[in-house]
Amino acid sequence: MTVVLGDNQYGKADVRLVHIARGGDWHEITDLTVSVALAGDLAAVHHSGDNSGVVATDSQKNTVYAFAREHGIGEIEDFADLLARHFVATYSHIRRARVAIEQHSWDRIAVDGDDHPHSFAAAGGERRTTTVTHDGAQSWVLSGLTGLVVLKSTGSEFAGFVRDRYTTLAETDDRILATAVTARWLHGAAAGDWATSFALVRRRLVETFSATHSLSLQQTLYAMGSAALEGQPDIAEIRLSMPNRHHFLVDLAPFGLDNPGEVYFAADRPYGLIEGTVTRDDAPDPGPAWRE
Amino acid sequence: MTVVLGDNQYGKADVRLVHIARGGDWHEITDLTVSVALAGDLAAVHHSGDNSGVVATDSQKNTVYAFAREHGIGEIEDFADLLARHFVATYSHIRRARVAIEQHSWDRIAVDGDDHPHSFAAAGGERRTTTVTHDGAQSWVLSGLTGLVVLKSTGSEFAGFVRDRYTTLAETDDRILATAVTARWLHGAAAGDWATSFALVRRRLVETFSATHSLSLQQTLYAMGSAALEGQPDIAEIRLSMPNRHHFLVDLAPFGLDNPGEVYFAADRPYGLIEGTVTRDDAPDPGPAWRE
Amino acid sequence: MTVVLGDNQYGKADVRLVHIARGGDWHEITDLTVSVALAGDLAAVHHSGDNSGVVATDSQKNTVYAFAREHGIGEIEDFADLLARHFVATYSHIRRARVAIEQHSWDRIAVDGDDHPHSFAAAGGERRTTTVTHDGAQSWVLSGLTGLVVLKSTGSEFAGFVRDRYTTLAETDDRILATAVTARWLHGAAAGDWATSFALVRRRLVETFSATHSLSLQQTLYAMGSAALEGQPDIAEIRLSMPNRHHFLVDLAPFGLDNPGEVYFAADRPYGLIEGTVTRDDAPDPGPAWRE
Amino acid sequence: MTVVLGDNQYGKADVRLVHIARGGDWHEITDLTVSVALAGDLAAVHHSGDNSGVVATDSQKNTVYAFAREHGIGEIEDFADLLARHFVATYSHIRRARVAIEQHSWDRIAVDGDDHPHSFAAAGGERRTTTVTHDGAQSWVLSGLTGLVVLKSTGSEFAGFVRDRYTTLAETDDRILATAVTARWLHGAAAGDWATSFALVRRRLVETFSATHSLSLQQTLYAMGSAALEGQPDIAEIRLSMPNRHHFLVDLAPFGLDNPGEVYFAADRPYGLIEGTVTRDDAPDPGPAWRE
Repeated sequence: MTVVLGDNQYGKADVRLVHIARGGDWHEITDLTVSVALAGDLAAVHHSGDNSGVVATDSQKNTVYAFAREHGIGEIEDFADLLARHFVATYSHIRRARVAIEQHSWDRIAVDGDDHPHSFAAAGGERRTTTVTHDGAQSWVLSGLTGLVVLKSTGSEFAGFVRDRYTTLAETDDRILATAVTARWLHGAAAGDWATSFALVRRRLVETFSATHSLSLQQTLYAMGSAALEGQPDIAEIRLSMPNRHHFLVDLAPFGLDNPGEVYFAADRPYGLIEGTVTRDDAPDPGPAWRE
Repeated sequence: MTVVLGDNQYGKADVRLVHIARGGDWHEITDLTVSVALAGDLAAVHHSGDNSGVVATDSQKNTVYAFAREHGIGEIEDFADLLARHFVATYSHIRRARVAIEQHSWDRIAVDGDDHPHSFAAAGGERRTTTVTHDGAQSWVLSGLTGLVVLKSTGSEFAGFVRDRYTTLAETDDRILATAVTARWLHGAAAGDWATSFALVRRRLVETFSATHSLSLQQTLYAMGSAALEGQPDIAEIRLSMPNRHHFLVDLAPFGLDNPGEVYFAADRPYGLIEGTVTRDDAPDPGPAWRE
Repeated sequence: MTVVLGDNQYGKADVRLVHIARGGDWHEITDLTVSVALAGDLAAVHHSGDNSGVVATDSQKNTVYAFAREHGIGEIEDFADLLARHFVATYSHIRRARVAIEQHSWDRIAVDGDDHPHSFAAAGGERRTTTVTHDGAQSWVLSGLTGLVVLKSTGSEFAGFVRDRYTTLAETDDRILATAVTARWLHGAAAGDWATSFALVRRRLVETFSATHSLSLQQTLYAMGSAALEGQPDIAEIRLSMPNRHHFLVDLAPFGLDNPGEVYFAADRPYGLIEGTVTRDDAPDPGPAWRE
Repeated sequence: MTVVLGDNQYGKADVRLVHIARGGDWHEITDLTVSVALAGDLAAVHHSGDNSGVVATDSQKNTVYAFAREHGIGEIEDFADLLARHFVATYSHIRRARVAIEQHSWDRIAVDGDDHPHSFAAAGGERRTTTVTHDGAQSWVLSGLTGLVVLKSTGSEFAGFVRDRYTTLAETDDRILATAVTARWLHGAAAGDWATSFALVRRRLVETFSATHSLSLQQTLYAMGSAALEGQPDIAEIRLSMPNRHHFLVDLAPFGLDNPGEVYFAADRPYGLIEGTVTRDDAPDPGPAWRE
C-alpha cells in the first residue's frame, strides 16, 4: 500500500478583464472574469517541489491580458478555446486546459434619447458563461448562464406529493414560483455561432418558464431543458440547477384580514434545490466537458 | 458621575415583502425590503427589562404585512410614511419612527414578443430606496437609489493633483471612470409625485455622469448633485457616495505589446471613496432626516 | 436660491496591510484593513475639477504602507492617530482626517505542542476596530469590536410586551438569545494603554452578556454598556448595535414529538435590531468623533 | 433522436439546525447547516408533473428537525448517514440519498475564569463538514473541513518555474504563503470514531502546512494530503482545494524605504487555485462518494 498522487490541476482564478474596443468614438465594452485550470504531467512539483514544469499562475494571468490585446475577445467561447489551446499547444507536459469565463453585461446609457458612445450601466446579476476544455486533440465547449432570476406570480401548483408522518406542507393550486436559473449546455462541435445560439437558448428558457403551467419545479425544469434542445441538434445536453426561492403567503387572519394571493414573505433559507439534465438518446460521451 | 442611557432605537430589519396586485389576469409585482426603527420613552426596558412599552419587533413585522394588504403599497415613500405615522400615532410613548425601504425591480418577461401577464425577471442590482422619519408633528422624506453601477470608457482625466514624497500615481488624460452610485435626497415636503420625481433625478444623475467630461470624481459628483437639484425646488439636499472602482490599464510592454486604452484590470480593493452633499443656500434644517 | 457644496470627504478605503515583525526567527503578524477620509478646503475640485489640493487616494494608500515600515504598527489606535495627524499636519488645506482600522486576528499554530515561530491560523470573524478623527487641534479616539457572535441557550425571557391587534408572538420564559455585537467606545483622551483597555472592555461585554439573566435584549445591551463604563473613567460613551439573531423553537407536535428547548431553527431575515448608547451624565461634547 | 431525462436530484438545502443538549444546567450546543439531495425513479414528475413520488423538500426539512429530537445529533457523519438511510429505506423509489452537513463551532465563554454552563461565542469561519451518500446497499462517508485559513510568514520559496514570453513574476526565496484549506476525505468504512479521526487529520494538515519548507503550494498540498493518509488506513483518499491568497511585498523604494519582508499587500483577486487528490494505490472504487 502506497500513497500516490491522484487527479490534480491548478491555475489562476478570477482574472478580472475589461476590454474596450474603440471604433473611433464609438466604444464597445467586454467585461469578463476568467479562470484557468491546467492539468498534465505535474508529479514532480507535488512530490519534490520541482517547479520546472510549472507555468506560474501569474504567467497565466499575463497570457489572458496579452491575448485580449493580440486577438481581441469576440465571443467568450472562442476566447476560452483560444486560451485553452494555447496552454496545451505551448507546454508539452500540459495535457488538459480548462478555461471558464463569466461575462458581466453592460447596457449603453441613453442621453437625451440617444445612445451614448462610451457610457454604460451595469445590467444586473445575470452572467453569460462558458467552460472550454481542451486535451490536445479536441475541445469541449459549454455555454451557459447564471443568476437569471425569474418569478411567476401565478400559474404554479404543487399538490399530490407524498403525505406521511413528516408532511405538514399544504397542497396549493396557486403559488408564486421563483428561481435563479443556472444552466450550462454542451455543444456537439467546438465552433459555432455562439451569440445566436446563446440568444436562442436563453429565450427558450425564459419563455418556457413563463408559458408553462407548472405542477412542480421539476416539470418546469424539464420543459425548459427540452425547449432548449429542440431544434438545435448542435446541443447535446443541458444541465439546469434551479433553487426554489420560496415565497410564503403570509397568514393575515390574526389581523382580521384575508390574503387572496397578495402578500408574501420571500424566504432565504432553507430552499429547495432542483437539479436535472436533459440530453439526447444518441448524445456522444461528453468526455471531460463537465469535470470541475 | 453617573452612567446614563443615551440615544437608542430598536426595530425589525430586513422584512422581505412581495406584493402581487391582481387586476384580473394582469399582475403587478412590488418587491421590498422594509426596516423599522422606533425611539421614544424606552428607559424602563433598558434599565430593568420592563417590556410594557415594547412593541415587539415581531409585531412590527406583522404590521408591515398587514398594512400591505389593507392599504396596498403604492410608492415606497408613501408606504414608509404610512407605517411611520402609524407607530407614532398608535403608541404614545413612541416619539419617532423611521421606516427605510429598498425596492427590488423586476422586468416583465416577453413571450413571442408580447408582455406576459404574470412572469417577471429580476432587473439587477440597483434598488430604489426611501427613508421616512416621523416625529408626531412632521415627516421627513428621503428618496434615493443604491447599486447604480456606471462606467465611462473615456472622457475622464486625472491630473494636477498633489505630488510629494508619497505620490507614485501617474497623471492621465484618458482613463476609465466607474462607480456604484448611492444617492439620497431630502424632499421639502412629505407628499409629492414620488415616481415622477425619482425618474427625473435618476435620469439627471445618469445623464450627467455620462455627459460630463470628468477631471476628477469629485467634480463629477458635484455636477451630478447639482443637476439633480436644478429645477426641482422640492428637493432640498442630495447626498452622494461614490466609490471609485479603479480600472488599471495593464502594462503589456513585457509581452511586446502596446495597450492603447484597450485592456484593463478591474480592481476590488482598495478603492477611492468620494462622498459629498449638494444643497441649497436656503435649505431648511433637515432635523432628524439623515440620522442613522 | 443657489446650489452649494455641503459636507464632503474623500479617501482610500479598504487598504489591506499585513505587517510581519521579525524578531530573529520569531515572527509577529498584524493584519489590518485601513480606510482614510479627508475633509477640508476642497471646493475647487468639486466646482471646477481643479485637483491642486487633492492628495490622491493612491498617495494615501502609499502613505499607509510607508508608515507601517517607518513607524511599525503598535496598537491600531496609535497607528490611526499617527496617520490622521500626518494628513492634517502635512496638507494645510486638509482640516480633518479620519482613519478607521479593522484588525483581523491570527492565532499561532502549535506543532507537536510548541508554538510555531511563523505559522498562524485565522482566528475568526471578530475584528478589533478603531476610528480616530483629528482636526489639527485634537484627536478623538474610538475603540471597538465587530463580529463578536455570542449566544445563550437559556437565561433569557421575553414577556410583558405590548399586546394588540398586530401581536402574535407568544411570551416565553426560556429562549435562545443570540447576537453579533458591534461596539464602539469613545475615550476621554487621545493616548492610553489601548490593549489593556480593549481587553477589559471586551471581557466585561462578554461576561455581562453571559451572566445577565435577560428579560429583553435592550436590558442586556444596557447592562453590557454600563459594565464597560464602570470603573473606567477614561471611557466617555459606548455605542452598541446588537441584531437579535432569532432562534425559533421548531414545532415538532405534528410529528408526535415534544420539543423541550432542544431543536431550533436559526433564522436569517428579518431580524430585530437593537441600538443604544450608554454614556455619563458629565460626558463632554463628542465633537466629530462619531461622524461617518 | 429523442430528448430524454438524464441525471437528476432534488432536495432541501441549507436547513439551519441548532440543537441544545441540556444535561441539567450544563448545555452543549450543536450548530449545523444540513442539505439533502434525493435521486431515484423521478421520471414522472419531470415528464408530466406527477408528484406522487415527490417527497416534498419541506418534508425533508421536517425530517431533519424531527430526527434531531428523536435521535440527537452525535457526530455529523452519523447524523448524515442516519438521514440518508432513512430516505432510501422509507421511500422505495428513492435510490440514492446524499446528506451534506456543515458544522459551525462555538467556544464556551469563561466568566471569572470558569466555563459558563450555557453561554457561547462563535469560533470563527472554519467549519467541519461531511457528505454521506447512501444507495440502499452501502454508505460512502466523506469527512472534511472548509474555511481553515492558514499563513506562514516565511519558510516558503517559489523559483525555477517556466520562464517565457508571458513570465514577469520574479523568483523568490522568501514569501508569505497563505491559503484557505478545503479538504474532504473518504473513509473506507461507514462507521468509525469520527471525532478522533477528524481531530487527527486536522492536526496533521495544520502541522504539515506549518512545518513543511515550501517550494510551491502544490508541494505543500501533497505533503499535507500524504500526512493525513499516513497511519490511517481507514482513509482511502483525500481531496484538497487550496487557493493561493497572494501577499505581495510592497515596493517602498519610491519613498526611500527598503522592505525586508515586513510590509505586504493582501490581494483578493485573482488568486492561484491549487487542487489535488492524494490517494492509495490500492484504494477501492469510490463509487458515487464524490458526486456533486
